Amino acid sequence: MLETDQITQDEVRQIVREEIQRAFKKDPAKKKLSMVASKGTLDWAYPPLILATAGAAANMEAAIFFTFYGLNIIHKDFDKKLLVAPTGNPAMPMPVPMPDVITGMPGMKTFATGMMKSMFKKKGVATIKELLDVAVELEVRLIACQMTMDVFGFEESDFIDGVEFGGAAAFLSDARKSHVTLFI
Amino acid sequence: MLETDQITQDEVRQIVREEIQRAFKKDPAKKKLSMVASKGTLDWAYPPLILATAGAAANMEAAIFFTFYGLNIIHKDFDKKLLVAPTGNPAMPMPVPMPDVITGMPGMKTFATGMMKSMFKKKGVATIKELLDVAVELEVRLIACQMTMDVFGFEESDFIDGVEFGGAAAFLSDARKSHVTLFI
Amino acid sequence: MLETDQITQDEVRQIVREEIQRAFKKDPAKKKLSMVASKGTLDWAYPPLILATAGAAANMEAAIFFTFYGLNIIHKDFDKKLLVAPTGNPAMPMPVPMPDVITGMPGMKTFATGMMKSMFKKKGVATIKELLDVAVELEVRLIACQMTMDVFGFEESDFIDGVEFGGAAAFLSDARKSHVTLFI
Repeated sequence: MLETDQITQDEVRQIVREEIQRAFKKDPAKKKLSMVASKGTLDWAYPPLILATAGAAANMEAAIFFTFYGLNIIHKDFDKKLLVAPTGNPAMPMPVPMPDVITGMPGMKTFATGMMKSMFKKKGVATIKELLDVAVELEVRLIACQMTMDVFGFEESDFIDGVEFGGAAAFLSDARKSHVTLFI
Repeated sequence: MLETDQITQDEVRQIVREEIQRAFKKDPAKKKLSMVASKGTLDWAYPPLILATAGAAANMEAAIFFTFYGLNIIHKDFDKKLLVAPTGNPAMPMPVPMPDVITGMPGMKTFATGMMKSMFKKKGVATIKELLDVAVELEVRLIACQMTMDVFGFEESDFIDGVEFGGAAAFLSDARKSHVTLFI
Repeated sequence: MLETDQITQDEVRQIVREEIQRAFKKDPAKKKLSMVASKGTLDWAYPPLILATAGAAANMEAAIFFTFYGLNIIHKDFDKKLLVAPTGNPAMPMPVPMPDVITGMPGMKTFATGMMKSMFKKKGVATIKELLDVAVELEVRLIACQMTMDVFGFEESDFIDGVEFGGAAAFLSDARKSHVTLFI
């Protein structure tokens, strides 16, 4: 046995510290992004899809669990279902300030939805359809919550292609391995 | 000293890598779920309680920090306090589409709340009372935010049994050890 | 070579386990808090600022990414822009119960905003201005979302001093190193 192969306690500690530092830098949880999408309006459909596609583009493994009103986002009719409600959100930019009894009038949801779509289009922001297509292409996992599907009366065939089905346990099993976990 | 007890630098690195891989699989942060429950309506009372009980059932240590309107969820009168507001949420399923000036009429909150309760019951979803009971049984930590209790004029005796009291620092001290952290 | 410098496989494993345990206790992700602030009302301006300043006071590195309506919070005119909407939030404490057609009347947003400000002041809670000042002093990173700034027509000069500018990728690059990640 060669003396150069021998190793001291101090050398061992040195190796251990180096390896641990390297391991924390490559912590697998840093590469995972797990989100819940629970809102069903046009404005709140954007954040989960933008974050998931940005994450996937940066080589993160992204998953979105759609539950409650968020099921609208992956419904085949998402374009009709995702509306904007100016009522109850004084932060929503309107052409002129309006009290909620006005923003609550018939036709105002259609007006606000059209206004938001045209603002986003003019600024070159992707549509929900484009973001969903990119998400599927980049292998973002889209999981529909079975419990709320059942409550709201949705069938598996109501959703776009590529959607998986699971429960809260499925979300948690993914999220517990992720550093980035967001409820949107 | 036996030669078999001797160890080389390469063998040390091998041991270190094995142990680190094992340690990351058992990362204690994977077992912890820390949530903020900030909304005080019936629909938004479900997600923190469903996730906490699902997590606890899967052997995770779950904690919920109730703040702002979320204090309603653990108030002794939660059954009267947790209502549903169809106004401002066009994603809320209604029997027929309604503008917000209609959903905002007297009695509509009671109507929407009753409708949601009956939908959930028909589908066999647990009630808020049942979920709270299970949460306490599974040792989910229920923490009421002292600052917002004070602002909204609540006393410790207003809350159900088993609730702890703490501030933002208490939440952060729990959450910084958790992989799954959600603001609901 | 001294025998005391020799080391066995068991001793190596012992050292490795000790070092790993120590490393997980000092996991750098435990010291980082990354939040998205997406709402633009007075009530929802509080949670990100309270959590960020509480975290920074406890030696955590805190960052807030302001996007969508959340841009209001760091706008120079935040005091005029941050209102409270009682409509659509039956959990909002009102002097007497009111249907949304009443809470939606002209002047009700101003009334509810004033009521909340006076409740907070009476209880000694810091104002948004005070929380922003403390956040800047404690070196909380305040990042404005460039994409939504552009959509809503904001300029860099519209925001308070100390704000940085970035996109979803900037948020994710910070958040993937943090245990505490919240979407508010």
